[in-house]
Amino acid sequence: MDPHFAAPRAYFLSLNRDQMAKTNLPLDADRLWADVMALADITDPARPYTRRSFTALFLEGRAWLARRFAEAGLATRIDTAGNLIGRIEGSDPALGVIAIGSHSDTVPAGGRFDGIAGVATGLEIVRSLREAGVQFRHTIEIIDFLAEEPSEYGLSCIGSRGMTGSLDEKMLDLAEPGGEKLRDALRRVGGDPDRLDQAIRGDIRAFLELHIEQGVVLESQSLDVGIVTSIVGIRRIEIVFQGEADHAGTTPMALRHDALVAAANTVASVRRAAEQLAAEGPDYFVATVGVLTVDPSASNIVPGRCRIIVDARTTNPALTSRFVDIIDRESTAHAAAARVTRASFATLSDGSPVACDAHLRSALSQGARGLALSETDLPSGAGHDAAFMSRISRSAMVFVPCRAGKSHAPEEWADREAITAGAAVIYQAVRDLDQSMI
Amino acid sequence: MDPHFAAPRAYFLSLNRDQMAKTNLPLDADRLWADVMALADITDPARPYTRRSFTALFLEGRAWLARRFAEAGLATRIDTAGNLIGRIEGSDPALGVIAIGSHSDTVPAGGRFDGIAGVATGLEIVRSLREAGVQFRHTIEIIDFLAEEPSEYGLSCIGSRGMTGSLDEKMLDLAEPGGEKLRDALRRVGGDPDRLDQAIRGDIRAFLELHIEQGVVLESQSLDVGIVTSIVGIRRIEIVFQGEADHAGTTPMALRHDALVAAANTVASVRRAAEQLAAEGPDYFVATVGVLTVDPSASNIVPGRCRIIVDARTTNPALTSRFVDIIDRESTAHAAAARVTRASFATLSDGSPVACDAHLRSALSQGARGLALSETDLPSGAGHDAAFMSRISRSAMVFVPCRAGKSHAPEEWADREAITAGAAVIYQAVRDLDQSMI
Repeated sequence: MDPHFAAPRAYFLSLNRDQMAKTNLPLDADRLWADVMALADITDPARPYTRRSFTALFLEGRAWLARRFAEAGLATRIDTAGNLIGRIEGSDPALGVIAIGSHSDTVPAGGRFDGIAGVATGLEIVRSLREAGVQFRHTIEIIDFLAEEPSEYGLSCIGSRGMTGSLDEKMLDLAEPGGEKLRDALRRVGGDPDRLDQAIRGDIRAFLELHIEQGVVLESQSLDVGIVTSIVGIRRIEIVFQGEADHAGTTPMALRHDALVAAANTVASVRRAAEQLAAEGPDYFVATVGVLTVDPSASNIVPGRCRIIVDARTTNPALTSRFVDIIDRESTAHAAAARVTRASFATLSDGSPVACDAHLRSALSQGARGLALSETDLPSGAGHDAAFMSRISRSAMVFVPCRAGKSHAPEEWADREAITAGAAVIYQAVRDLDQSMI
Repeated sequence: MDPHFAAPRAYFLSLNRDQMAKTNLPLDADRLWADVMALADITDPARPYTRRSFTALFLEGRAWLARRFAEAGLATRIDTAGNLIGRIEGSDPALGVIAIGSHSDTVPAGGRFDGIAGVATGLEIVRSLREAGVQFRHTIEIIDFLAEEPSEYGLSCIGSRGMTGSLDEKMLDLAEPGGEKLRDALRRVGGDPDRLDQAIRGDIRAFLELHIEQGVVLESQSLDVGIVTSIVGIRRIEIVFQGEADHAGTTPMALRHDALVAAANTVASVRRAAEQLAAEGPDYFVATVGVLTVDPSASNIVPGRCRIIVDARTTNPALTSRFVDIIDRESTAHAAAARVTRASFATLSDGSPVACDAHLRSALSQGARGLALSETDLPSGAGHDAAFMSRISRSAMVFVPCRAGKSHAPEEWADREAITAGAAVIYQAVRDLDQSMI
């Protein structure tokens, strides 16, 4: 254990969290917090906090990040999958890379911490380690993954898919509502869809990500950090109902082909099925219809076409299979009852649950104990870039508590001390892993 | 009966419709059709046929109409309620005005005839009457009412409301999603919200409107025209459900406040209640949810807020009262079950059913019989400017058949001969009324 952390546990416990963060943790809490706030401030002013991937604001945020990376002495580049990467070479190139990262894009009207806190944490760890005069054996990289949140192209985790060889030609052909294809958007942000193989990495030995919990486990138990055991698998299904856009005044009820009626009944089916599967226990299961669009969307026209996106998540893939069977059957029945066609029932994405690496989890847990921080194991109900990164590297995550479990909303909040504590746990794990991993 | 129409009935019946229209009806069918097609062509090319009120395309259509009005010898102006009016003075100003009209705006991705055919009919009637050397006793006006279709400001029949003193300050304060208020939009299209009283008319003695049926009665019975008996009353209700925008992955089913679940169940309630009331007979009843918006609308966020607009129409207001009671009760229950707040249950508009004027109906019916055209009485399931005009003037409508009853869609279609026949019936009624009304 580094002497820096050798103060006895009793000493830490005698301090309140604020004192501890300011006096004993090996990071500059103020500097880390200022970075989070500065990046969060780069938002659509009409809809805080919004910095959607591929937009001008997103590029502005990245330009700011790249400057901060450079100031910290990192060599900065954008890989062909559109990831912003800051790098500092280790003394033994053969040992490969320890990577820390997350994402800087947000959902519409999201929060200030989701993604941002993880990128800023990586940056602060490198700065603090260098200021402490630590010489790394491993090369260290800080990664801002492209478009972790669902993008306008109907795909999430675009950068980590690219880095792990999981971004295929069909995905590159996805288009946003305005018609631009993902391959062209990728080029626009500095990537290169024609040379995606160059983004695929075989040299990363460990990937660590800090993220807000987005749930209430840590807060409700007054715990400092969560060590993530596994990340849920996410299945996304698009269902399209095609009816006929008739006049709402002159079309008798018995002659309608109302696409919204079929879609609305399917929303009810999703809710009912998800509640049943979640109640079975012990596995985690949730399902949501977060998108429902009506065409043509006028009060005096019977809806001619409706599209919904169903998002189902679980730690047990068998539950998703049962869920999809139910929704397939019931949406077919709802379409028939409304005399419309179920024009599409398509899997947009299907990720398996991912277990976090035991060795890294142990290093994180040891780091927390060394810092006298309270911890627990917990699953992640949210998808993260770490789930893709686990395909090419040992990967693990640290969760920090957030207020009332709120995220993807302007009221999303994590205390400065909570983020600092989580970052310190990763700092400590990186130091240990740099010595122990060969 | 005018000698122009004195050919014996048998003669008409010996001709097919096309020959009759071209050889005997007192109108230039080609010129009328060309006007309809020319105005329809002024459309958003990406979404035919779209000429939304208050847009640049709408103003382009009006500029074209104003030129055609002027070419026909009409004095043209825009009143303070934004209606485009062409006028030709009668020989006896004390007799007042016979008005013919409809609207030139469309729904999004609407058709080529809804509204347009009625405006073009008025224009063709004046041209034909003048070419026939007819001297009017009454002043004749052709009116293109502003924004008959539901506008971006959440209001329909804006021009006819204004002309009948039914456009109030609260309505003028309605705003479109971009924030522009209706009062400012009205100014933009040539109206004057500060002098709306000048648009209110007391001098119109008869108002006649041709419109496509937007239903299948005439087509299924192979009838030439429908004489409208009454126009349904329309109640529009906005319901807003306010939940919480939580993370779709980390928020357990039991802790959600999903606004879309409440909205979807309310859509199902609207359908169920409307089917029951319609099945009771004999009164006409339909209800529709044509608009449903989800906020924030991302696949990985539990919907925080949903808004629906319910449109209910009937010839018997007691049915609407029963319907609203059911939806009020059930939407409250759906909100409670989804643990969301029913933030709004607001009446956006509430029009009573309107009976068409018996004297004008008789003149129209007589006109049809004189032209040997088959006719029937029928109610209108759609609202029309004529419903507002009935507040200040005798008013009546002629319906012409349209293919498969389709309207408010690009496939909306009425045959040239059908429009010509309907226009000829109004031509004849105008000639009779000009002589008979004092």
